[in-house]
Amino acid sequence: MSIDYTVFKGSPNGRIYKSTASRQVKADDVVVKITHSGLCYSDVHFKHRDMVLGHEGVGVVSSVGPACSNLKVGDRVGWGFVRDTCAHCDMCYEGEDMYCADGDFYGQKSLDTGSLASHAVIRESFLFKIPDAVELLHAGPLMCGGATVFEALARYGVKPTDRVGIIGVGGLGHLAIQFAAKMGCEVVVFSSTDDKREEAMAMGATEFHAVKGLTALNLKRNINCLLVTGSGQTNWNLYMPSMAPKGKIFPLTVELGNFVDLPALPINLKGLTLQGSTVAPRQVFPKMLAHVAQHGIKPVVETFPMTEDGIAQAMERIEQGKMRYRAVLVATD
Amino acid sequence: MSIDYTVFKGSPNGRIYKSTASRQVKADDVVVKITHSGLCYSDVHFKHRDMVLGHEGVGVVSSVGPACSNLKVGDRVGWGFVRDTCAHCDMCYEGEDMYCADGDFYGQKSLDTGSLASHAVIRESFLFKIPDAVELLHAGPLMCGGATVFEALARYGVKPTDRVGIIGVGGLGHLAIQFAAKMGCEVVVFSSTDDKREEAMAMGATEFHAVKGLTALNLKRNINCLLVTGSGQTNWNLYMPSMAPKGKIFPLTVELGNFVDLPALPINLKGLTLQGSTVAPRQVFPKMLAHVAQHGIKPVVETFPMTEDGIAQAMERIEQGKMRYRAVLVATD
Repeated sequence: MSIDYTVFKGSPNGRIYKSTASRQVKADDVVVKITHSGLCYSDVHFKHRDMVLGHEGVGVVSSVGPACSNLKVGDRVGWGFVRDTCAHCDMCYEGEDMYCADGDFYGQKSLDTGSLASHAVIRESFLFKIPDAVELLHAGPLMCGGATVFEALARYGVKPTDRVGIIGVGGLGHLAIQFAAKMGCEVVVFSSTDDKREEAMAMGATEFHAVKGLTALNLKRNINCLLVTGSGQTNWNLYMPSMAPKGKIFPLTVELGNFVDLPALPINLKGLTLQGSTVAPRQVFPKMLAHVAQHGIKPVVETFPMTEDGIAQAMERIEQGKMRYRAVLVATD
Repeated sequence: MSIDYTVFKGSPNGRIYKSTASRQVKADDVVVKITHSGLCYSDVHFKHRDMVLGHEGVGVVSSVGPACSNLKVGDRVGWGFVRDTCAHCDMCYEGEDMYCADGDFYGQKSLDTGSLASHAVIRESFLFKIPDAVELLHAGPLMCGGATVFEALARYGVKPTDRVGIIGVGGLGHLAIQFAAKMGCEVVVFSSTDDKREEAMAMGATEFHAVKGLTALNLKRNINCLLVTGSGQTNWNLYMPSMAPKGKIFPLTVELGNFVDLPALPINLKGLTLQGSTVAPRQVFPKMLAHVAQHGIKPVVETFPMTEDGIAQAMERIEQGKMRYRAVLVATD
C-alpha cells in the first residue's frame, strides 16, 4: 500500500512551497493525518533544503500497517525528530536512540516525511500517544522543544530540592520553567530585559533576573542545574560564580558555535558537568507527556494556518525573535 | 601539645627556603614523620607564596592525639590536598569534601602544613593507610596525580569495555594509562611526538598516536572516555570526530584557560559530557590504593633530596617539561 499526501518543503532560496509526496506504507508503519505541527528554530535552519520540514508532529491515526500492535485508527499521537534507527548499535541497545550510529536524526534520509504536511508515515514505535488531558494544539511544541528541556531536567537527575537556572525565555525556556516548577525546584530565570518578567513568574519562576549589562549576579543561593536556552553566546563568567559545586550546565542553544569564553578553572574546582544533550530518546516522551497531563502544563503558542503563507509568516516571526513562545501550524482541512 | 618541625616554603621571588614551623596537635590530629613527597605542577604555581609547599605527602605516624582511633604510631600513611573541611555543608554531607563550601583546598588556611617538610600535623580522617604492597617511594605521586586520574576514571563510570583516550603522557597521563589498562579498558594514547611511544605501550597502552601536525585521527573505534592531561590548549576539533556518542571528556589540564575552540554542536549531537573534576574526595583514596596494590601499578619517578637545592632542581625540571614522569622528594634524615 502507498499513500499520496501534501507536503511543505524548503527550497534553495528559502521559500516554502507546497508539493505532493508519495510513500509506501510498510507493515510496521502508521499513517497519521496531521492536525498540528510546532515550528522550531532548527526548521528555519533547514528552509533552504529540498525536504519536507517540521519535526513537532501531532495528529490522528488514519490507518495502520498489519504488523502494528499498539496503535489503532483514531488514536491521538505525536512524534519528534527520530524516525529511523539501526536498532543494533550500542546506542540503540542502550535505549539512546537519539545517538544511533545510523539514525535519521534530521530526517535527511526520509526527505518526504515531516510534520508540515497533510499526512506522515511513521514507524509505530516512534509515535507517542497524547494523553486525553492534553490538547493536540499544545502537544506539538512538546515533541522537540519540550522533549529537549525535559530530557535535560529529568533524565540527568535534577532533584526537587535543586535550584534550576534557566537562561532565556523562549520556545524551550518557557517550557523549562513550567517543568522545573512542577518538579518542585526553585526556578531562577535569566532574561536580557524585564519584558518577560510577569509571564515568567506566572509560569512558575521563583526569581527573575534581567541580566543585560550586569557584571555580577549576587544570588542568595547558588544554581544546581543551569539550562542555557537563549540564542547566541553566553556570558559564562557572569554565571560561573553562581554555580553550586557539582552543578550541571546544559548548553541547549544550537547557535553557540564554540564555547569561546567558557573558563576551565571553575569547572574543575567546582566539579561542574557540562552536559551535551539533544531532544530525547523515546522512553522520555511518555514520561514527559504524563508530567504535562498531571500538572496541566501548557505551551504558550501563536497559531498560523498550515499554508505556504502561514509557514513563511511563522518563520519570519521566529527569526525576528518575536515569537511568544512557540509557533503552531494548524491544518486547514 | 605542640611540635616544631622543618618546612620548605615558597617566597615572593620564587626561591624555596628552609624554615621552622610550630603547630598545636589537637585531639584528633596525627603527627606524621614525612619520608617522601611527590611534586606537582601546582606546587610550581605556588612557589611565590609564603607557605609550606607540597600536597603529595607520605610518611610514618610518629604520634597520635587522644581522640584518634584508626591510626597508631608506626603506620605508613599518605595524604593529598584536603586538610580541613566544614563537615556540615551540602558537599560534606554528600561525601564530596573536595567541594566543601569552606574547605582548605590549597592549604591556604594552614600555611604551616605541607608535605615538603620534616613533619606534618593532619586530622586523622584525612590520612590514608598505604598498603604493604606499595612502597612509600611510589605512594606520593598517587596522592594528587594518581587521585586526579583515578577519580575521573573510576568515579564517573568508566566501563571495562570502554575505549579510554589519554592526551599527554606525563605525571597524570602515565598513571592514567596504567589505571585504565588494569581496569580492562582499551587505552588510546595521544602524545605530540613518538618519543614516549615505547614507554606508553609498556605501561599498558593499546594504541599510541603522535598527533603533532595531524588534522584527523581516523581511529578504528571511537573513544568513550577522554582524559585531557597535556599542558596548554587542546585541539578539540581533532578529537571531536573520534568521540563515541554519550562519551565523557575530563579536562584535567589546569592550564587550559578558556575552552576557546571547544565546539558546542558535536557536544550536543553526540550527547557528550564535559566533566570538571579536581583530585578526589576521601572515599576514593582507599579504593585507588587497593587498585594500585592489587595490580602492582608503579608511578615512574625521578628522586631528589628534600633540600632547598633538591626542590629547586625538581621544580626546574618540571617547568622545562623534562620530568619522566613524577618527581619525588626524599627525606634526608
